[in-house]
Amino acid sequence: MPSKRTNNTITGPLGFRAGSVACGLKTGHALDLAVLACECPAVAAGVFTTNKVFAAPIAVCRKHLAAGQAQALVVNAGNANACTGPGGMKDAQAMTVQTARALGIDPQRVLVASTGIIGQRLPMPRVRSGIDAAIGKLADTPKAGREFARAIMTTDRYPKTAFQQIHLDRCVVCIAGVAKGAGMIAPNMATMLCFITTDVAISPTLLSRLFRHSVDKSFNAITVDNHMSTNDTAVILASGLAGNATLKSLASASKFAAALDDICLDLALQMVSDGEGATKGLEVAICGARTVADARTAALAVANSPLVKCALFGGDPNWGRIISAVGACDIACRQERIDCRIGSQYVLRKGSPVSVDRRSLAKIMAAKVVQITVDLHMGRAEFCCYGCDLTPEYVRINAEYHT
Amino acid sequence: MPSKRTNNTITGPLGFRAGSVACGLKTGHALDLAVLACECPAVAAGVFTTNKVFAAPIAVCRKHLAAGQAQALVVNAGNANACTGPGGMKDAQAMTVQTARALGIDPQRVLVASTGIIGQRLPMPRVRSGIDAAIGKLADTPKAGREFARAIMTTDRYPKTAFQQIHLDRCVVCIAGVAKGAGMIAPNMATMLCFITTDVAISPTLLSRLFRHSVDKSFNAITVDNHMSTNDTAVILASGLAGNATLKSLASASKFAAALDDICLDLALQMVSDGEGATKGLEVAICGARTVADARTAALAVANSPLVKCALFGGDPNWGRIISAVGACDIACRQERIDCRIGSQYVLRKGSPVSVDRRSLAKIMAAKVVQITVDLHMGRAEFCCYGCDLTPEYVRINAEYHT
Repeated sequence: MPSKRTNNTITGPLGFRAGSVACGLKTGHALDLAVLACECPAVAAGVFTTNKVFAAPIAVCRKHLAAGQAQALVVNAGNANACTGPGGMKDAQAMTVQTARALGIDPQRVLVASTGIIGQRLPMPRVRSGIDAAIGKLADTPKAGREFARAIMTTDRYPKTAFQQIHLDRCVVCIAGVAKGAGMIAPNMATMLCFITTDVAISPTLLSRLFRHSVDKSFNAITVDNHMSTNDTAVILASGLAGNATLKSLASASKFAAALDDICLDLALQMVSDGEGATKGLEVAICGARTVADARTAALAVANSPLVKCALFGGDPNWGRIISAVGACDIACRQERIDCRIGSQYVLRKGSPVSVDRRSLAKIMAAKVVQITVDLHMGRAEFCCYGCDLTPEYVRINAEYHT
Repeated sequence: MPSKRTNNTITGPLGFRAGSVACGLKTGHALDLAVLACECPAVAAGVFTTNKVFAAPIAVCRKHLAAGQAQALVVNAGNANACTGPGGMKDAQAMTVQTARALGIDPQRVLVASTGIIGQRLPMPRVRSGIDAAIGKLADTPKAGREFARAIMTTDRYPKTAFQQIHLDRCVVCIAGVAKGAGMIAPNMATMLCFITTDVAISPTLLSRLFRHSVDKSFNAITVDNHMSTNDTAVILASGLAGNATLKSLASASKFAAALDDICLDLALQMVSDGEGATKGLEVAICGARTVADARTAALAVANSPLVKCALFGGDPNWGRIISAVGACDIACRQERIDCRIGSQYVLRKGSPVSVDRRSLAKIMAAKVVQITVDLHMGRAEFCCYGCDLTPEYVRINAEYHT
């Protein structure tokens, strides 16, 4: 068996280097621009916001990823380059061109991402000097990986990272991820960003399929405030340097797929627990739905209900709010079939209330993470999503004047 | 011309009497059960929650209104009779039977409504004695009308009433309405209720059509927290005693329709301004949409966005949140066409930011009611909805333990 590797950052998988600098997009000399580069063209896939108002970097990435390959990415925090018109589009393209030139690669092989204030043009002179400086610092050290995780933060309270190591064909395969929070955070900070590096050898089609699947069960299953950003970006780059036989079928990739699922869910849950003003977590499982789409709709409706979120904050086992949030959804549902549990305690069976010991319910509601399970008894589909409470602190953060 | 009438409550239109009592469903001897009765069978129409988890009284009303006629209604506050299983259904029916017997009419002619805590059976002995007492008090006085408005309140800060008088065929036609708030209010109080009386002579089909239309532009265009209740009920009763020639066509009913629109919008706006913890109002107009459904979806998405609502509370002209809420909707929309105004000030034109004097924008955001207009430039449909801000007080109210 090959030995374990010690660098558990995004520069851990073979082939990747990162460089991060402070170029003045954030205040206080904080890291705000970073470049990630692979020593060879990497197999790449991305999942982006479905918001029809999307930032310029999203348009560039979609185009550049059409070939399923990428070799570098440049990312800035502090300015989202969203709602910036044709000028913003030129800025995003310029960022890829400059990065490509400095690395000596095709600009089509460079991805770009931005996060921060909406509706303001990037200060391009700062960005340009930042890109050159970041490329000058490229390194495959753990420090370079940790700095990258900090450079993409906006008002996250802590950097979000995850790492897994698996064995395939007697080779060590590493997967590493960094992310920044999904809350739309004052002042006007939007966006969840996630970048994953791996050295697995895999076909572009399979990577794209597995990544979409992992994202659906993780980043698409979390909600802080139901506000889809203009810049949401999740990208994976696979250098193929681990030495395994190239993964081409779902069957051969089960181990890698499971590790990728874990990485994505791990990062997604870190985002939720760092949700704005959040004090408690919420897991909403809908089962017995006719379709996964139905289960997903209902789960997110519960997790996004301001009333459910306030009840969670207050530790109030107010299950009427849960059931009415489910019933309001456009899904197959009949109230006389619905079961509802908070933790392991049934509060509703077949649409009729269960006589419950209120004190034990209050204890369940006081937990750091509260599980809600609703069985619709309409079919066999299920979906689980993850949210947090709504607190006065959330309102305070988001009501602050941003100019 | 006939003279004006002086009773501007729901007992003002000819034929209606009301009686309200405190039967112990609320604490502190507050009025909590009321009966409204018409001296003849009235033409009737109703619009109810589309929540699949609906309260027992909703099921009863839907059935009883199938004939387009009703002669009385009984309503209680303090208990929603929702999620109460088959037993709750029996209770709702029993309320109509008892009211019908005391009035000497067919139980099918009696409607029933409840608002209050979800998941608990009604204390029927109290309800039964309350119904008898309320019927004993039936009167057509302004006082009886005002008491009815108070009896249906839960945690509303003030009763909500509206009144209009029009002339048709040289007859005075009165329309009066009462409503209670739409917020899902602690402790577990749900529901918007609205009852309208009129003495107009009108066909059942036309009344139903006009009422549905008025409700769509008023009660279905307001949002406090995007939480559709299990008990939402809007009912109109038309005694036909005003003496006008029976309205049968849309063309003949334009004056009545306009007055009904006004009554409904007036009551709906009173509900919003009494929204939980609300300090400011929001009007969101989406125009240039491909369909009214698109316009409606986008308008409600903006008015329900926690981030937009927090920005409103903080007086922050954070238009990126507005645009990204619109773009997240599943509607026909292209970002390069979008215009956005706050008040009369453009902040975005054709998807590009407008250079704006921040101080004048801040002044607009400081208004008691803030207007947001988004033109999608995709078609000619439009919709306007009404909301309020999200405040720490809302969280406080809804986080309180309810048992």
